[in-house]
Amino acid sequence: MKKDRKISAPVIRRLPRYYRFLGELLDNNITRISSRELSDKMGLTASQIRQDLNCFGGFGQQGYGYSVKGLYGEIGHILGIRNSYKAVLIGAGNLGKAVAVHMAFEKRGFRLIGIFDNDSAKMGQTIQNCTVFHSDELEEFCRENKPDVAIFCVPKTAARELLDRCYHLGIRNYWNFSHYDLSVVYSDIIVENVHLNDSLMILCYKISEAHAQSEE
Amino acid sequence: MKKDRKISAPVIRRLPRYYRFLGELLDNNITRISSRELSDKMGLTASQIRQDLNCFGGFGQQGYGYSVKGLYGEIGHILGIRNSYKAVLIGAGNLGKAVAVHMAFEKRGFRLIGIFDNDSAKMGQTIQNCTVFHSDELEEFCRENKPDVAIFCVPKTAARELLDRCYHLGIRNYWNFSHYDLSVVYSDIIVENVHLNDSLMILCYKISEAHAQSEE
Repeated sequence: MKKDRKISAPVIRRLPRYYRFLGELLDNNITRISSRELSDKMGLTASQIRQDLNCFGGFGQQGYGYSVKGLYGEIGHILGIRNSYKAVLIGAGNLGKAVAVHMAFEKRGFRLIGIFDNDSAKMGQTIQNCTVFHSDELEEFCRENKPDVAIFCVPKTAARELLDRCYHLGIRNYWNFSHYDLSVVYSDIIVENVHLNDSLMILCYKISEAHAQSEE
Repeated sequence: MKKDRKISAPVIRRLPRYYRFLGELLDNNITRISSRELSDKMGLTASQIRQDLNCFGGFGQQGYGYSVKGLYGEIGHILGIRNSYKAVLIGAGNLGKAVAVHMAFEKRGFRLIGIFDNDSAKMGQTIQNCTVFHSDELEEFCRENKPDVAIFCVPKTAARELLDRCYHLGIRNYWNFSHYDLSVVYSDIIVENVHLNDSLMILCYKISEAHAQSEE
């Protein structure tokens, strides 16, 4: 299907959730779903869901609901998971290891091709079939393998220098756990930031709100 | 300040980001900021920011901008970070360790009081001043210490049973890394889910989109 329409950022942000829910339905051999059932599962209104799904075309049929498989395939297609972008992960501490081990890279459009760390003790280890190299080897590795993406699992203090190195090696896409604001340094890069503290604060808000309401 | 107004969910979702940016401004001794400057930093429109900040009252002054400290304090207050909710973390693998080490719990309204794991080899270890206990001790520990929150750093397959145990121990708030949909099981719990795969798919989308545009 051609990408002949512009989908808004909030809709895009919801696509991975749709994709997850639809994947679970497929696992349970459910072939069709109505917007009402999907809205129950996702905590959105049925009209919101119809509006979202209308953005990318005709998978709903009045009275029959949506084809789970069709919708799942189309959303995966829009998200670009047929790609196999080459990624290097930098920083093999607990966080880096957790990311390397738990992420379903190949199902999400990526391929992890190398892991780098400053700690010589970690050299030669294998994490998820991926060798850990010393950070000094980053330049040579990147020139040879031309990764598309760098995953930053390093402290904030290390991020700026690392970004300069990666940028000069031609890497323009970043999955960033470092809390350093990479896009301030270079405007022509693509950055997806992960801020777990934000999620923690939202939890704090939800708990406080619930307490406040129960005290009213 | 009394919580006499209802703030919408999308605004709430943006508050931790405001809080982060304002914290950085404070670190740099910046005392006032205009909505335009804040919008440049945050990638939102100035009018969106004025609208957001109007939700919680008078920190802006025409021509003078916002008091960084005032706004920072008020947003922290709304998010409830003055609290000190007691949290237990379950699952001390790479992910659990990373969460225990990297999260600024005390600055976000929480206190980590215990870590639990099935692996006897980890018993008695200390992570961020917190002792690792065997999961068998969860019941006794919770009866004594009455945690408010459980942090699930366990595989999806382990989540359901663990949830039943925690629920019966009186825990109603969950920070959930397990990908298991906890709120389907109990409707009277508060859950904040972390889905790193969603973030990865958004990155994939951004890269694919950029490629598609450069090929047009």
